[in-house]
Amino acid sequence: MAVYTDITDGELDAFLDDFDLGAPLTFKGIAEGVENSNFLLETQAGRYILTVYERRVRAEDLPFFLGLMQWLGQRGYPSATPIPDLKGRILKRLRGKPAALIAFMAGISSRRPGPAHCREAGRGLARLHLAAQGFKGRRPNDLGQSAWSSMFKPLRGAAEALKPGLCTAIEEDLAALESVWPRALPEGIIHADYFPDNVLFVDGKHRATIDFYFAAFDLLAYDIGVALNAWCFEPDGSFNITNARAFVGGYEAHRPLSSEERAALPVLARGAAMRFFLTRLADWGESPQGAMVRPKDPLEYERKLAAHRAAAISSLGLLGTGG
Amino acid sequence: MAVYTDITDGELDAFLDDFDLGAPLTFKGIAEGVENSNFLLETQAGRYILTVYERRVRAEDLPFFLGLMQWLGQRGYPSATPIPDLKGRILKRLRGKPAALIAFMAGISSRRPGPAHCREAGRGLARLHLAAQGFKGRRPNDLGQSAWSSMFKPLRGAAEALKPGLCTAIEEDLAALESVWPRALPEGIIHADYFPDNVLFVDGKHRATIDFYFAAFDLLAYDIGVALNAWCFEPDGSFNITNARAFVGGYEAHRPLSSEERAALPVLARGAAMRFFLTRLADWGESPQGAMVRPKDPLEYERKLAAHRAAAISSLGLLGTGG
Repeated sequence: MAVYTDITDGELDAFLDDFDLGAPLTFKGIAEGVENSNFLLETQAGRYILTVYERRVRAEDLPFFLGLMQWLGQRGYPSATPIPDLKGRILKRLRGKPAALIAFMAGISSRRPGPAHCREAGRGLARLHLAAQGFKGRRPNDLGQSAWSSMFKPLRGAAEALKPGLCTAIEEDLAALESVWPRALPEGIIHADYFPDNVLFVDGKHRATIDFYFAAFDLLAYDIGVALNAWCFEPDGSFNITNARAFVGGYEAHRPLSSEERAALPVLARGAAMRFFLTRLADWGESPQGAMVRPKDPLEYERKLAAHRAAAISSLGLLGTGG
Repeated sequence: MAVYTDITDGELDAFLDDFDLGAPLTFKGIAEGVENSNFLLETQAGRYILTVYERRVRAEDLPFFLGLMQWLGQRGYPSATPIPDLKGRILKRLRGKPAALIAFMAGISSRRPGPAHCREAGRGLARLHLAAQGFKGRRPNDLGQSAWSSMFKPLRGAAEALKPGLCTAIEEDLAALESVWPRALPEGIIHADYFPDNVLFVDGKHRATIDFYFAAFDLLAYDIGVALNAWCFEPDGSFNITNARAFVGGYEAHRPLSSEERAALPVLARGAAMRFFLTRLADWGESPQGAMVRPKDPLEYERKLAAHRAAAISSLGLLGTGG
């Protein structure tokens, strides 16, 4: 959640001159999107999200992200679609930063998802994987399994400071993940950040998926691993197997998993916990000047990682056994 | 700008059960309102701002603020009007905190107001003063002139730390303000925080005034003093007399000032600079846990105060001479 960039009314007017959307009626910074500044913009023509991309999103990745969003929209997938200007450009600049105007999507994210939300979210993720097929853009997942060991190197001290003994535990996890990581599962475009924040519901139904700024090419089932961590842990740290089964069941209603994919879910979820632990640890204590955002607590994902470590074993294992 | 309180979808549904507004379609935290958490809520019935009042707003003041907003709305003044629930209550509770549902107002605040904006803003302020006449609620201005000396006492060290010599300068200002403060000007309900953030325009016309959470009973012309500081200083610290004349001219189109009020504007503006300097100094370095907000720089108002000190004298004095 962040608004880093302040836009004056003059800058907004100049930006809108490139479109044919009428006069602005509402312009409000919204507390959404960790990586960017987002504004709700209403004009005489409709409602939009104006996104200004901040330092963390690499400008060279934006054509991939925006192209994917446009592709998905054209295929009828309910996602936030970029609005081209009068010259057909979707990647714009504002206050010297990359920016884009995106269709506003109604819907409310669930902050306490239950099984019904999880089932719908699973459906939405499978439909995303299917809709993205054929998109020609390629972006390797620079936060994928092959990157984790080198991401951890500069964070050893921070891990140990967070919790004594954690450095060794993480190194053992990294070695375990390296040795068991599946290599031969179906690949495609993944969302890679399919958290409840990024999934909008209306009347309990999946209405839209937003925030594609981590999308990349990777194992499709890894996206489920990311989601299981984000949707299926209770505030007390316990894994909610009912939510997890609902999510996977919803997913399989559109894209059935192979037995290899199902069997790999526990290790994929464990890896996904590592990925978010590492980036949160890196962000911890480092917040951009003027950000209206707290870094997320790395301990949340440290606990999830520990749960996966223990239960490479117990309840999570159930996911892999079918049923 | 702040969102301190997180509302779950279940809490939102329970809150909406008291209204007849249909299902929620959009719910987003917005970066607006320093004192409260604000959410843009759209339901099948329309658009609203859901405000959750945080620690700084005193719960016992809320009936005054909400009652005033309701009064103004009923008199056709374009302000955010509270929406009563099915039992007629406008002051609600959410997550254990006071909360209210307010009509959404279209419009965009001006971040770089020019004379045309200032003229419109002046009109909007005068119309507010007139529309509030007859409102029976009473709330003394606890941030008014009589409070400043005692507000400053615990801040002496902070002032000196901000700028050596500042403590003495402020004490001299406080004594000067005490001796020249006008006592016999027309009184009424003032907005007391009529900053550009709180004034919404559409197509360059005043569309709405929002954020009445400092409103109080005080000298009407003091509200102009607050506004002159907020609307008429350039980023380089110089006072923009063109903006100031436009503001006062717009104001007088609806409520002509007496010669005593006009003559008092420089001292009222100087006092208003003191008030915002004092509260910003008190807030400096003290930000609520989890707030997505930076405290505002007290030096901005220290500079305005210094400008008034020097020009109790020059360009500001022009305001008092008529013309």
